[in-house]
Amino acid sequence: MADRYEKSEAGADAPVVPSLRWEELPEGPVLVLLDQTRLPSEEVELVCTDVPALVQAIRTLAVRGAPLLGIAGAYGVALAASRGFDVADAADTLAHARPTAVNLEYGVRRAAGAYRDAVESGADRERAAAAALAEARAVHAEDAEASSRMAAHGLALLGELVPGGGHRILTHCNTGALVSGGEGTALAVALSAHRAGELRRLWVDETRPLLQGARLTAYEAARTGMPYTVLADGAAGSLFAAGEVDAVLIGADRITADGSVANKVGSYPLAVLARYHHVPFVVVAPTSTVDLDTTEGALIEVEQRPGHEVTEIAVSFVPGAGAEAGTGVPVAPLGALAYNPAFDVTPAELVTAIVTENGVVSPVTPGGLAELCSTSRLGKSRSGNGMMAE
Amino acid sequence: MADRYEKSEAGADAPVVPSLRWEELPEGPVLVLLDQTRLPSEEVELVCTDVPALVQAIRTLAVRGAPLLGIAGAYGVALAASRGFDVADAADTLAHARPTAVNLEYGVRRAAGAYRDAVESGADRERAAAAALAEARAVHAEDAEASSRMAAHGLALLGELVPGGGHRILTHCNTGALVSGGEGTALAVALSAHRAGELRRLWVDETRPLLQGARLTAYEAARTGMPYTVLADGAAGSLFAAGEVDAVLIGADRITADGSVANKVGSYPLAVLARYHHVPFVVVAPTSTVDLDTTEGALIEVEQRPGHEVTEIAVSFVPGAGAEAGTGVPVAPLGALAYNPAFDVTPAELVTAIVTENGVVSPVTPGGLAELCSTSRLGKSRSGNGMMAE
Repeated sequence: MADRYEKSEAGADAPVVPSLRWEELPEGPVLVLLDQTRLPSEEVELVCTDVPALVQAIRTLAVRGAPLLGIAGAYGVALAASRGFDVADAADTLAHARPTAVNLEYGVRRAAGAYRDAVESGADRERAAAAALAEARAVHAEDAEASSRMAAHGLALLGELVPGGGHRILTHCNTGALVSGGEGTALAVALSAHRAGELRRLWVDETRPLLQGARLTAYEAARTGMPYTVLADGAAGSLFAAGEVDAVLIGADRITADGSVANKVGSYPLAVLARYHHVPFVVVAPTSTVDLDTTEGALIEVEQRPGHEVTEIAVSFVPGAGAEAGTGVPVAPLGALAYNPAFDVTPAELVTAIVTENGVVSPVTPGGLAELCSTSRLGKSRSGNGMMAE
Repeated sequence: MADRYEKSEAGADAPVVPSLRWEELPEGPVLVLLDQTRLPSEEVELVCTDVPALVQAIRTLAVRGAPLLGIAGAYGVALAASRGFDVADAADTLAHARPTAVNLEYGVRRAAGAYRDAVESGADRERAAAAALAEARAVHAEDAEASSRMAAHGLALLGELVPGGGHRILTHCNTGALVSGGEGTALAVALSAHRAGELRRLWVDETRPLLQGARLTAYEAARTGMPYTVLADGAAGSLFAAGEVDAVLIGADRITADGSVANKVGSYPLAVLARYHHVPFVVVAPTSTVDLDTTEGALIEVEQRPGHEVTEIAVSFVPGAGAEAGTGVPVAPLGALAYNPAFDVTPAELVTAIVTENGVVSPVTPGGLAELCSTSRLGKSRSGNGMMAE
């Protein structure tokens, strides 16, 4: 079950609440999540004591974003193990809580594998649970490290693609500290440009239907002092036409072997606009997002979410509003059908570069992508092996 | 001043309330407007007894849509004349209530011209006011007639562009009976396809920030029984990629001499997507929308609307919500800047065809466009002179 834990007004100088933390309470361990559906109005934490609560938090997007889902999945397995639930069962449920994000499955597999290995080497339940938790912590720490490496690679790439500095970057959805063990993916690159004095403007797509851009990216941009401006997704075209965008930076929920990128719906139209306007379209994601077992983008199962996310607006001042149909403010006639895919798929030919913790692949080719990933899989050598911006 | 007049629940079988009507009350004439900001939840009418009330209704988008603005502008002049206000002054205020829509100025000029002509021919004030009103009624009736002619031309064009019938049409914003003296522009074409049994699906872009698609087009589609599905603007890319769109049909707020089309923000990205996917992109607008005096799209003044339309969601159950900053539900951090152009401009090279009441121009060339318009300006001969789909 999940309880509301703590609540504070998100004032300008309130401390940043971590998106996820493991806590050992007298009554047992818990996974504490910042409820991202309530931002930016309120910082409310959810305390998960079991896997069903975590699955519910994942499905309602209280916790979201590809890398963070991997971390949450790993801790979820550790939670089940520590509390004596069936670990294989928990891992299976967690891995399929949302279909498109490959990181979720990746994190679950890592922690479940550590648990299984421990059991097979004769560890008792408690020690096996400790092994699962240690692996979850490792996934968490690796993601933080990957974040800072992606930020460095991405900043170097921006310098090459957009000479002269003073970058005007358009981003979509939310890809910052809220989705990561560190500072995130695409937004971490923008933040490092800001710290280097190279960010002229961060254009923030509001990202309908759930407004992760307006609510979450703007929240992070405000916290970190980035110069940012929010826009309706449909207004991005006007910015391109006016020559106001130097580069598009987005994250990814899954990258297939051919370099196709599944990301928040609305990313693909930006890729087409970027191509039409000769603007670089850059994807920033850890190699854990790459799914080499899926050969092409057309094979990605795109999650179809409930229509009421489009036909109703969730209002943050009503607790729980938006999670179920009929709890938001209706903006379409009663009974209206809605088409609500969570993601879209951008083919490699529209992607200028993919930035990972191991370096950059550009142009995006299956061989280049596989090579970057093999580096991570062959032991944990994280020394420079990027293909372009190393 | 404007009062709320009448209020009814917008149930499925409630009668359709006209978007605008002139009424002669014992205390003087009034212009009654359906408040489009309250749809689809409620049908509320605003009663305007003077020009400032009408200007306020225009600015808050209670009355909106290019053709309807022309009609409202003409009746506004008639209202000022009938009630004894300064007509030249009223005409000037009305013509500039919103900068981008050329029809508004067109309607105002027609009624103000009729008033002035009457005065110059020696008519007293009352007879001059009657002349202005007659001209407003003529603008209204001509628009209704133009609607049905555009619908016929557009349907014939669809038959040519998308052989085989069963059209899947994507539309943006609202272009139906709510914006017209008749059944509208682009939506009138979709409706005529529906009546001909040729509409397989109407894809309705919700059209952020003000959601005219989700609120108004869906309302009209539901009323007329069209098979429709609402989507977030960013999801249109997925429909194109899946081959689910046979044609895009939109309206226009201003068309310049070179065939550039200013329309609701979000139209231009659809034009780029349509080009990338080899899907026809068709603009439906009366010749009163064509501004031959403006030579090119780059010269169009695009209205920049308040940022709070993006950073707050107007909630329809709070009367007046959204008209002022701070009255809607915040969806971005306090103090967030927003970029909120009302329109974007699509160059002629991305437009497959422009459908007017006088016929169709395709490809869109300055000469072809000027020829269609000259037909309307040389007397009122409305016999067939289309260039393609007559």
